[in-house]
Order: sequence, then structure tokens, then C-alpha cells
Amino acid sequence: MAELTKIVLSEKDMPTHWYNINADLPAAGVEMAPPLHPGTLQPIGPADLAPLFPMALIAQEVSTERYIEIPDEVQDILKLWRPTPLYRAHRWEKALGTPARIYYKYEGVSPSGSHKTNTAVAQAYYNKQEGITRITTETGAGQWGSALSFACQIFGIECKVYMVKISYEQKPYRKLMMQSWGATVVPSPSDQTNAGRSILAQHPDSTGSLGIAISEAVEEAATRDDTKYALGSVLNHVLLHQTVIGQEVIKQLEVAGADWPDVVVGCTGGGSNFGGFAFPFLRENVINGKSARIVAVEPAAAPSLTRGVYAYDFGDTAAMTPLLKMHTLGHDFVPAPIHAGGLRYHGMSAQISAIKEAGLIEAVAIKQRSVFEAALSFSRSEGILPAPEPSHAIFQTMQEALACKESGEAKTIVFNLCGHGHFDMASYEAYLSGRLSDYEFSEADMKESLAHLPQVA
Amino acid sequence: MAELTKIVLSEKDMPTHWYNINADLPAAGVEMAPPLHPGTLQPIGPADLAPLFPMALIAQEVSTERYIEIPDEVQDILKLWRPTPLYRAHRWEKALGTPARIYYKYEGVSPSGSHKTNTAVAQAYYNKQEGITRITTETGAGQWGSALSFACQIFGIECKVYMVKISYEQKPYRKLMMQSWGATVVPSPSDQTNAGRSILAQHPDSTGSLGIAISEAVEEAATRDDTKYALGSVLNHVLLHQTVIGQEVIKQLEVAGADWPDVVVGCTGGGSNFGGFAFPFLRENVINGKSARIVAVEPAAAPSLTRGVYAYDFGDTAAMTPLLKMHTLGHDFVPAPIHAGGLRYHGMSAQISAIKEAGLIEAVAIKQRSVFEAALSFSRSEGILPAPEPSHAIFQTMQEALACKESGEAKTIVFNLCGHGHFDMASYEAYLSGRLSDYEFSEADMKESLAHLPQVA
Repeated sequence: MAELTKIVLSEKDMPTHWYNINADLPAAGVEMAPPLHPGTLQPIGPADLAPLFPMALIAQEVSTERYIEIPDEVQDILKLWRPTPLYRAHRWEKALGTPARIYYKYEGVSPSGSHKTNTAVAQAYYNKQEGITRITTETGAGQWGSALSFACQIFGIECKVYMVKISYEQKPYRKLMMQSWGATVVPSPSDQTNAGRSILAQHPDSTGSLGIAISEAVEEAATRDDTKYALGSVLNHVLLHQTVIGQEVIKQLEVAGADWPDVVVGCTGGGSNFGGFAFPFLRENVINGKSARIVAVEPAAAPSLTRGVYAYDFGDTAAMTPLLKMHTLGHDFVPAPIHAGGLRYHGMSAQISAIKEAGLIEAVAIKQRSVFEAALSFSRSEGILPAPEPSHAIFQTMQEALACKESGEAKTIVFNLCGHGHFDMASYEAYLSGRLSDYEFSEADMKESLAHLPQVA
Repeated sequence: MAELTKIVLSEKDMPTHWYNINADLPAAGVEMAPPLHPGTLQPIGPADLAPLFPMALIAQEVSTERYIEIPDEVQDILKLWRPTPLYRAHRWEKALGTPARIYYKYEGVSPSGSHKTNTAVAQAYYNKQEGITRITTETGAGQWGSALSFACQIFGIECKVYMVKISYEQKPYRKLMMQSWGATVVPSPSDQTNAGRSILAQHPDSTGSLGIAISEAVEEAATRDDTKYALGSVLNHVLLHQTVIGQEVIKQLEVAGADWPDVVVGCTGGGSNFGGFAFPFLRENVINGKSARIVAVEPAAAPSLTRGVYAYDFGDTAAMTPLLKMHTLGHDFVPAPIHAGGLRYHGMSAQISAIKEAGLIEAVAIKQRSVFEAALSFSRSEGILPAPEPSHAIFQTMQEALACKESGEAKTIVFNLCGHGHFDMASYEAYLSGRLSDYEFSEADMKESLAHLPQVA
């Protein structure tokens, strides 16, 4: 193998700015609808978000500046694991017998094991700057909760995580990781908030959902002066912080002497790993005449981009958050308990939703058994045991590579391996023992929850 | 921070040869005693080892060639994660308030999460070269078993792992990792070997030990023509394969512009991570007049180097393996159930034992509560959650750094962080909940097991 197996950059080559796609959306003909106030259904201003977020993050949420400087202190912390490696999948290509050239970016080297740490550090930093001493959040699969716990620990901020009850019970090691970094972890729904108590009153056995946990974390932040809230995906500033990923990949492909990619693949739940990875490529498509196909891969059990409606909806079950115009299955839709907990969300980032509506990206939805089959195929060649979430991207990459085998084309395919599966081994057991269910989403359930969509004029 | 946080090398800078310390032991005044046959107690020849190991590994076991070339195919696989990063612990130094400069090598980036993968790939390769289609081994904590499962998967070799029963039950995720890579995993003692059946007859409730599991794996390999055996530590060729670690560190310290280290720290169970990390430094001490203190850190529950005798002993409980002259607690000594399963072994590498006898290295033994306290102190600054094994090295590094704080000396300290703790979170739970016992080894038990030492003339 003359060509490198992995392309590593020195931390001196780390991106110094985040890329803000808002700056390029007008040129791409994409229009963003403003967020609305949950009470008045009127467009909100910065002051409406101030109880939840520090002003610096609110400013980033609405900024149209193309490049936003990454503070030195944030860069210093990112250097604990960034730049992350880009791999050429020599062995997997050979195992698949494809002429395609497959590259993958590996974000699993961060302390908490996924890309979530990129924005966790930035968010904790801006909270610290504004004197915040306490942050609440929610976590489903646990990647985001552990990323924020780590970041809060670094900045000496108290961190409280509402963890979806079923994950709390099934993934004790994720919980322990958060506790090891000093966080308080509470199973949600809990009796600590009105939102939690109200759910428990109706459904005492509720195993929770991301939407409920968000309601609890938001309520606590909104009602306590010393506390703000942090979200691990969906919002513009979160996707912004993840753009270090795509920027590094473009530089690494150049170092590798690779062709410009034909296909760029990422999994998508709320959209942060997909956006952070794909937006720098999308800019090249829109502004510099490149033409990579950009493919978002979502689970068949929560197919917001491919099956949801494009409409205003709440981010949480209790209808407390601002409304975003996004692809949604309805804010009280509860996806089936697939193992890719990070992709079990009813809505999609407003930016990605608008970009999808404009036809600038493709989207597919995949059932979980095929996802695990692809994950093992990959791992048995490349070693890394991927989390269930990026295994969706692995599946799609495998389809593209097998199509190349059919056609004889040597396409260049790049995907984002946004986290390892070390805390997801129970899902591998389910797959290996043949107990894994191939959930699909329920059209009937969606119709019911879509009937609860807020009526926006 | 002007100085780099981590020093990464390109895979073009990966060592091309293993360093064989046997070549330099005579100059250091260290004499190695020959291995003995378990039946005759006479020195063994290569033919005696042939039922267990491929000839290429037997040749490496006794080689006195200073540098042994790493086959291209092995190098290509090592490139999936090597060279591994060397970190400067800026944040931990600050948290400790020490003027010391702390560096750590991180081997947790390998597919199976520890340094074990370095030798697993080499051993699987040489077996494959000699037409072997099946390998047995044992595993305690699971690091070695998963490393070998991965390597066998890559080479298409069948892999059977005898896993110490208590680990099999307590660490299902390690088992699943091995199964994900296609290995068969059996709890030991099992009914599949004479050794296992004999233990079960005497102790039906036995939770197993590394010594028993070795007996089972060795017996199966010795009695089946298609099967060889692989060991993850102790033997010369295993330590040899790990010397990529120390060689990389020396190169990385140079890139960092660091001073030559004053102290080099590694944990030690059978000795492979310690040897692989420390031997290249030891060569500089012995041959090139350098003077780093080299410190081996072992658990107080299995203190072979600090409390064992230096004598000929078997490597396994059933007395089936060749005898090595080593520091031993007695081959039927069963260490207390500390969480650092990789350090629960009665004996020590013959090379490290001889080097310790010659006074070329230091050794200390540490109780596990202090070890976890140090692990959390480290993780809360640096992010990485370390396995219990390397946390022994972290503890000792912390002592050295705090001594520097006392004395005001800005020493350079380097330690090997040989694996992550993602599969060891139950041990963190025991620590965080105050349930962790501070086991020490039992002098009385050791006396009894030393009474069973073979009588060598």
C-alpha cells in the first residue's frame, strides 16, 4: 500500500474558524424561516432565548458571518483529540471487491467517543464566559450527555443531565462516564419538573423520550436564574461548531492526493454530525461549482427527512421550546426503540430541512438489521467498532461502493464515522443473537402526532 | 499554549524494526536463565515449543539480533492505528500544580483499545505464514482476547478464547467485542479440557484464574494438530513486538523538543506494555550513558516484582508450560479480584525479572483505591478515561509530579497509558460508590504456593 492508511494533521493545521452556512444559503436559493415563540407563535428575538442560552450562542444562532473565529481556549481543549484522523478504507474496499475509493473521518477519538464533544466544549466555554455556573441538558443514547459532562468538568461548571429512562437503565456505563466527569444524572421522566411529573401522572411506566427529557431540562433552566440549557444537535450554533469536521476532511483529502469526492455520506438524527461534516462540501457545490452528491442517512424508525412534513413544530414534547420550521414527525411522536438512540428524534435541524427542501441534498431511510450487518462488515476489515448511528452512513457507503462494483466506476466516497460503539455492545449482542427487530415507523402514529402540530398562520 | 498538546507522527515515521533487548543484556551485565522443560526440568530447544508456537516466533523468542524487521504486511495493519499519539499533560500538570513536565503515550486508539493489538497482529501473521488455521488463547480482563480476535479475523484464522469465568460474567461487553470479530469465547474453567475438568472436579464453583485459562488453552493447542497457542504477555517475542511503543515515544519527545526524561513509568502484570515502552529507554541508559529512572508499577494484590521470589516456575496453574526463571508468587497463587484484571498474574516476564535483579529498574506496588483516585484526577483534566491497569502508572506519575511540586524540580516524566477504560466502567462505579476494596496480597497464601515451586537443581 503506497497510499497512506490514515491522514493525520498536526494540531497546527486545525481549523481556526467555524464555517457558518447561513452566509451562503441566499446564494444557494435557500430561505430560512425564523424561529417562533412557543406562546405567541410570532418570530422571536434574542431576548426570548436569553433565559436558556448565553448571548454569544444566541448571536451565533442568527449570525450570517461566513467564518466565526474559534476562541483560543476552545481550540486548546479541542487539541486533546483534534484534528481527528481521516482513513482510506483499503481493507474494506478489498473485502467488498469495489473499485471505489472509500475514505472515512473518525470522530470516535474524542474523550467521550463521538463528535458531540466539539460543540460541548464551545457551549461550556461561552456559558463560562458569561458567568453561568450550572447547565442542564438531556441525553438519549448518552453521547451528548457525556460530552457535555466532560466539557463542564473542564470549565468547573455544574452539569445536570436528564437521561431518557430506558437508556438510563440499559446503558449504565454511559451514565457512569458522566458521573466520572462529575455530572448529576437523572432518569427522565422525573419528579423534579412539572413536565416530568405531568408525564408520570399520565404514564407512570413511561420509559421516556428525547422530547420529554428536553422539556425537563428546558423547564429547569427557564425557572432557575443560575442555570442555562444546552442542546447537542438541531440548532444552528451546534451545527456551526461541528464544521471543524468537514473543514479538516477537505484538507486531509488534499494531503492524500484524493479526487474531489463523488459522494459525501453522513447519518442524521438532529443533524449535527451531518451538518458539520457536509456543510463545507455543500459550500463547494454551491459557490465553487463542485458537484459531490451529499446523502443524509436516517433510521427507518424515525424518518423525519424522508417521511416527515416540512412545517413549524416544537423541539420538545411539552411544547415549551421555540418552534422551528423543519421536517418533523410531530413533537409527540415517539420513535420505536432502535439502538441508534442518537437518531431517535422527531425533528430535523432547520438548516438541513431547508437545504433538503431546496433539493441540495439527498436522503434515505434504513432499517436497523441492515445497518448492523454493514457495521460488522466494516469492523471486520477496519477494526473500529462503530456506534449504531454512524453505521447508518456505513450502510449507505456500502451500497454506493457495491454499485461501483456493478458499474466498474472508481468513485471517491467519503463518510463520517462520528463515534465508536464501545458503549453500544448490547446492541451488537441483539444483532449477533438474532434478536434485533427491524422496526419501521408507524404512519398511523405519525398522522396522529401531525394532527397536534401547532397552527401557524 | 505554545507547546503542542499532542505529538502525532505520520505512518511514514512508524518504526520498521522491533528492538530486541536480548542483544544488549550482556553489556548490561544481565544474564538470562534458559527456559526449562516442564517434564524433565532440562533446558528446552525450539522443537519442544513447536507444538505451541510457529517457528518464526520461537526463533524470535531466542534471537539475539538487535533489530528485527517488521514484515510489511504487519506494518500495513499496524497503520490502522499507529503511530499512536504522545500527549503533553498540560491540563493535568496545572491541576496538580507541579512544575514537572508530564508526557503520556496513548495506546488506547487501537481497535481493541489497548497495546495488546501490536503483538496480536504479529503473532497472527506468523501463524498464518506457517499455515495455521486455528489459535487458542486465554484472556483475563479481555484486552488480549479481543486483540487476538481482531487479528485472527484480519488473517482469516479461527480463534478460541478461554476467558476467566468471573470476567466472562462481569464483562459481557468484552466478550461481545470478541464475538463481533468472529471469535469463540468459552468461560474457564470449562469442561472442554482435562485441566478445566480437573479444576471443576475439585472446585465446582471456581471463578477461574489466568493460570487455569492458560492451562486450558495450552492443552487444546498441544493436543490438536491444526491448532497453535498465543500468549499476550510474559514471553520475549511478545515484549519484542511491543517495542514499537518506546521507539515511537523517543522520536516524539524529540519532535516535541522535550528534555530526555528523568522518569519513565509503566504498569506491569506479565510485563509486555512495560517492556515495550521501557526497553528502548533502558538501551539508552545501558549503552548510551543516559540515566532515566525506570519505574514498574504493579498492584499490591499481585506484587510479583516487589514481593515474589526470583525462581523457576510454571506459567500456568496445571504446570504444563515450560518453566521460566522469573519473579513469581507461585503458579497456584490466585490474586485477589482487583479490577485491573490484566495485572492479576502470579509471574513476571523473565527479561524484566532479570533486569530487575540486576538493579536496572525500580518497582513499586499500589493499592487499587489510590489507583482509581489518580485515574479520576487524570481524566478530569485530560479527558481520556483510563483502564485500571495503566491507572497504576498514572498513580505513580502523580507521586513523582507531586514530589516535584515539593522540591520545585521541573522533571520530565513519561508514562504509558496502555489502554482506555470503556469496558471497565463497572470498576469506576465500584470506586465512585465507595464499594471498592483495597485488597493486598496474602503473604500466607504466597508461602503456601511457593512451597509448590518446582525443585530445580
